Amino acid sequence: MKPRDVFLASLKIEEAPYTPIWLMRQAGRYLPEYRQVRGKYSFLEMCRLPEVAAEITLQPLRRFELDAAILFSDILIPLPPMGINLDFYESKGPVIENPVRSTADIERLRVPDPYEDTGFVAEAIKLIKNELKNERALIGFAGAPFTLASYAVEGGHSKNYIKVKQLMWNEPEAFQTLMDKITETIIGYLSMQLEAGADAVQLFDSWIGALSPKDFEQLALPFINKIFKALKKYGKPTIYFGTMTSGFLNLLAGVESTAIGVDWRINIGEAWNTVGHDKAIQGNLDPVVLYAEKEVIRAKAEDILLQVGKRPGHIFNLGHGLTPETPIDSVKFLVDFVHDRSSEIKKA
Amino acid sequence: MKPRDVFLASLKIEEAPYTPIWLMRQAGRYLPEYRQVRGKYSFLEMCRLPEVAAEITLQPLRRFELDAAILFSDILIPLPPMGINLDFYESKGPVIENPVRSTADIERLRVPDPYEDTGFVAEAIKLIKNELKNERALIGFAGAPFTLASYAVEGGHSKNYIKVKQLMWNEPEAFQTLMDKITETIIGYLSMQLEAGADAVQLFDSWIGALSPKDFEQLALPFINKIFKALKKYGKPTIYFGTMTSGFLNLLAGVESTAIGVDWRINIGEAWNTVGHDKAIQGNLDPVVLYAEKEVIRAKAEDILLQVGKRPGHIFNLGHGLTPETPIDSVKFLVDFVHDRSSEIKKA
Repeated sequence: MKPRDVFLASLKIEEAPYTPIWLMRQAGRYLPEYRQVRGKYSFLEMCRLPEVAAEITLQPLRRFELDAAILFSDILIPLPPMGINLDFYESKGPVIENPVRSTADIERLRVPDPYEDTGFVAEAIKLIKNELKNERALIGFAGAPFTLASYAVEGGHSKNYIKVKQLMWNEPEAFQTLMDKITETIIGYLSMQLEAGADAVQLFDSWIGALSPKDFEQLALPFINKIFKALKKYGKPTIYFGTMTSGFLNLLAGVESTAIGVDWRINIGEAWNTVGHDKAIQGNLDPVVLYAEKEVIRAKAEDILLQVGKRPGHIFNLGHGLTPETPIDSVKFLVDFVHDRSSEIKKA
Repeated sequence: MKPRDVFLASLKIEEAPYTPIWLMRQAGRYLPEYRQVRGKYSFLEMCRLPEVAAEITLQPLRRFELDAAILFSDILIPLPPMGINLDFYESKGPVIENPVRSTADIERLRVPDPYEDTGFVAEAIKLIKNELKNERALIGFAGAPFTLASYAVEGGHSKNYIKVKQLMWNEPEAFQTLMDKITETIIGYLSMQLEAGADAVQLFDSWIGALSPKDFEQLALPFINKIFKALKKYGKPTIYFGTMTSGFLNLLAGVESTAIGVDWRINIGEAWNTVGHDKAIQGNLDPVVLYAEKEVIRAKAEDILLQVGKRPGHIFNLGHGLTPETPIDSVKFLVDFVHDRSSEIKKA
């Protein structure tokens, strides 16, 4: 079976000869070839120039036997065409020039035309698909509504999410309008990615762990599901990933995606039992394990494989993104080990 | 019943006329009287001068009908006498001048004599107890071993805990020695607080959510329990609090404290079922709710009380510390509402 088919079979919870693996932020600063390109362009240029985004997307696939590529981009890319202007500062991360704070700010936001305003993403996907020749899969992605709303309202990274929660609780109608506009934008944006040839898409909810279970259920989940319902017509697999979701995995059972990704703060076997075996599961190695010695990497990766056992439907990944100083040879070691050991486990 | 008795009865899972409440970081920057004192002393001076620490501890009790005071101090106070020098920078938080990185660094650390090296804490406790006249309870506290080890190794706040995890996984013997020394230090430090008159003590494991369940179980839990076992001879209640623990609450059932505190990322009723009703439960309002309108505060606090129901053994608290801009009148509203509404629920 080709790696792409192994990846897609696992998302469909079908038997596969080994456990497929890809890694969140697998294209990034830990690769010297990434840093070389990064020296020539701003971060936003790298996302917006299709040839550059395609090149960076493919870099880790040249080094490692990953089963899937993930589009190089950023979850904030759809915000500027909505009317939310952003800039990336090297040290501070993204900063929004005009954070959304009032009903008037929200009323002014538009739902962009995905092809007209973010067509460069479709172009990048076509270039990548052309290179991959259906040997390995390509994953598209977007940020989930609550995470994007948080960026829009807070204006960047946030410690306590005070402003977005104030909007959410004190002005529910304004919050609903903001979430509706973001949701419509993301539906268009991910539809375009699937139409351009992405084999699957992942919704990243990086900041969802700021919410209590009840807030998640009432104020985030309906928008997440509106997106997944709208994408069903493409018949392609979808993944929902959030961090710090261990306290409401029972609610993630209600997310209408094909798969659920979990962080490393829970045993993956237990997580899968809770979200239900009718969904595929993705995860969940602590990304910092890649800074440890090979024997540690081996033991911790094996522990995940053994928790899952022979059941089909597991996609190996980290519990969060690769960090910038990760040793390259540890990534190679992990990818090869997961393939070899899972193959043995499935045969045993 | 006096507030102190209501608090202690609830920790013993005995009937009480209402649900007691205290708030993590209830003495802090949101109070103008705190900022006034803060203008005169450095942060470490405030912790080390018994009269000043006592004054700050008592400030929130003058404003609010809290059932317990918590000693004003910092979890890092026991580190300097171990040989780990620290300074507090206003913007960056605590910074350690000589982080622990090698076996030699760890060998050099000493286990302090609590009275000789941190006797000012016992002095503060005596002053506070004298003022409280057993009307309201006094909680002592310390940082838990993994959290303190993280500070010692990382040198301050950390994003990914790479250095402490490398030590933990790659050099298990050195890590064990470090954890042993911290554990012995904390046993002495908390014993002193209980001997000085603290009615209960809380172990803060602010950073434990960086660990996977298996790492928690193997590399943190044994040290936590060594502390709680050593404190049992005092016959006073103990509380273990960590954040982002929802994925391993089943393991917290094995913590030998009287009570478990949980953050807001799980329903408290569900959390209590998992840690077991033989323990008291503490929590778990999102601290940011205090920035919302009163109706929101009321609804969210009531939801917690209704999840718990009439079962004795709940201590109301936030799911993490009060933040610096919290409106004072919202704190008062919360404290009074919890008393009134829980009293109604218990009578109904």
